Amino acid sequence: MHTPALLRLRPAGAADNEDVAVEMPVALTVNGISQAVMLATPADLEDFALGFGIAEGWFASRHELLELEVSPQPEGLELAMTVTAACEQRLKQRRRTLAGRTGCGLCGIESLAQLTAVRPGPVTPPLLADDALARAWAALPAAQPLNARCGGLHAAAWCLPDGEMVLAREDIGRHNALDKLCGALARRGEPAQRGFVLTSSRASFELVHKAAMAGIGLLACTSAPSSLAIETARRLGLQLWAFVREGRATRYA
Amino acid sequence: MHTPALLRLRPAGAADNEDVAVEMPVALTVNGISQAVMLATPADLEDFALGFGIAEGWFASRHELLELEVSPQPEGLELAMTVTAACEQRLKQRRRTLAGRTGCGLCGIESLAQLTAVRPGPVTPPLLADDALARAWAALPAAQPLNARCGGLHAAAWCLPDGEMVLAREDIGRHNALDKLCGALARRGEPAQRGFVLTSSRASFELVHKAAMAGIGLLACTSAPSSLAIETARRLGLQLWAFVREGRATRYA
Repeated sequence: MHTPALLRLRPAGAADNEDVAVEMPVALTVNGISQAVMLATPADLEDFALGFGIAEGWFASRHELLELEVSPQPEGLELAMTVTAACEQRLKQRRRTLAGRTGCGLCGIESLAQLTAVRPGPVTPPLLADDALARAWAALPAAQPLNARCGGLHAAAWCLPDGEMVLAREDIGRHNALDKLCGALARRGEPAQRGFVLTSSRASFELVHKAAMAGIGLLACTSAPSSLAIETARRLGLQLWAFVREGRATRYA
Repeated sequence: MHTPALLRLRPAGAADNEDVAVEMPVALTVNGISQAVMLATPADLEDFALGFGIAEGWFASRHELLELEVSPQPEGLELAMTVTAACEQRLKQRRRTLAGRTGCGLCGIESLAQLTAVRPGPVTPPLLADDALARAWAALPAAQPLNARCGGLHAAAWCLPDGEMVLAREDIGRHNALDKLCGALARRGEPAQRGFVLTSSRASFELVHKAAMAGIGLLACTSAPSSLAIETARRLGLQLWAFVREGRATRYA
């Protein structure tokens, strides 16, 4: 597999010798068909491809992604996925034109009726230890090495119900970070539903949606929730915490 | 014009009597044709419709938007725009399927080649007074009344070269806040290129792109820039400042 330059730190134009997070167009193709273009940080691309596909409802199991080839293109990177025939058929049925910039989670719909075409089923939250959120929150900075260097990156971390942080991923987009995390969990065969996710960002609709698509029943975010995130979490039975900070966390659903 | 409930604060599910920023699907249609669905804060919708269309290259002038009707739909709000025949023709030629969540700026492309289909021309930065960024930064909190109540909202503000803040808009999405600001400037007939924009967010590609589409030559952001934002700003001649904070600002392009 081609491995691109993952992080081009200190690009031309950066002042004060500061490192800058790389934002790059990443095109996803499935069996040769263009599906989406996202702006993302070009690290953990295997995790991203699988996690994005899970969030979009493309994959019934991680084994449907047979091969991934990463290749540089004039405008960015291409992630060329080879999938099973059953998966390709599913995709044809629900194909939407997808594309997004760094902040974007689920794109490509053109009317309101399409908004909820892919609906996750209900999820079950794990039972948290009393200090689980505090423990996870305290571990978050150490899981953000790129953000410490560059600023401007989000992180999503998967933690056990006692608050132990097992795995984290970073990206310039909050939803990309979660896609990468869900993809990494699937690639490792971790039972995602047994733990919870802590993100460094606001709790927006797409994070709730993506967590539920990966079977995760509890999402905790360090910043504010949106109304639609709360409503979606309640509908899915997902436990939503926001404003997770030193000595504080607020449960919204 | 129908006026929707602009802000549904304290929705069901909010704990501690905290206000929560509303995130709602907003569909944009032009002469009856669906164009995009964005997740946005449902305030300043006239500004949003015009600013979004300017950023997308739909409108050659604000006078091409003849009428806007806002109507509630089962899944969200519809912004139904009536435009001139010339504008409709332009749109048909460059029509892309657009949709995005709160964090998304420009969506709907499905391959890398389409990424730069609408390219803004070069822009000219205004000449700033020495303390302009510091003045604007100091004025930003007062321009974010919703964020003060709810958290989780971004702001974009237009300021004169001496740092005086003239106009600001808020939204749960940083690019929506900038769309609303650009739309508000156009509706007021302000010469956008004479001032600069300060945003409460990171400097990402789509903010540089949108600023340039509105003719704005200087963008200042309170947080980190991305590599693609810097590269795009340099290409367009847009002056880009990031990490605008107390006593500090870094010029990147």
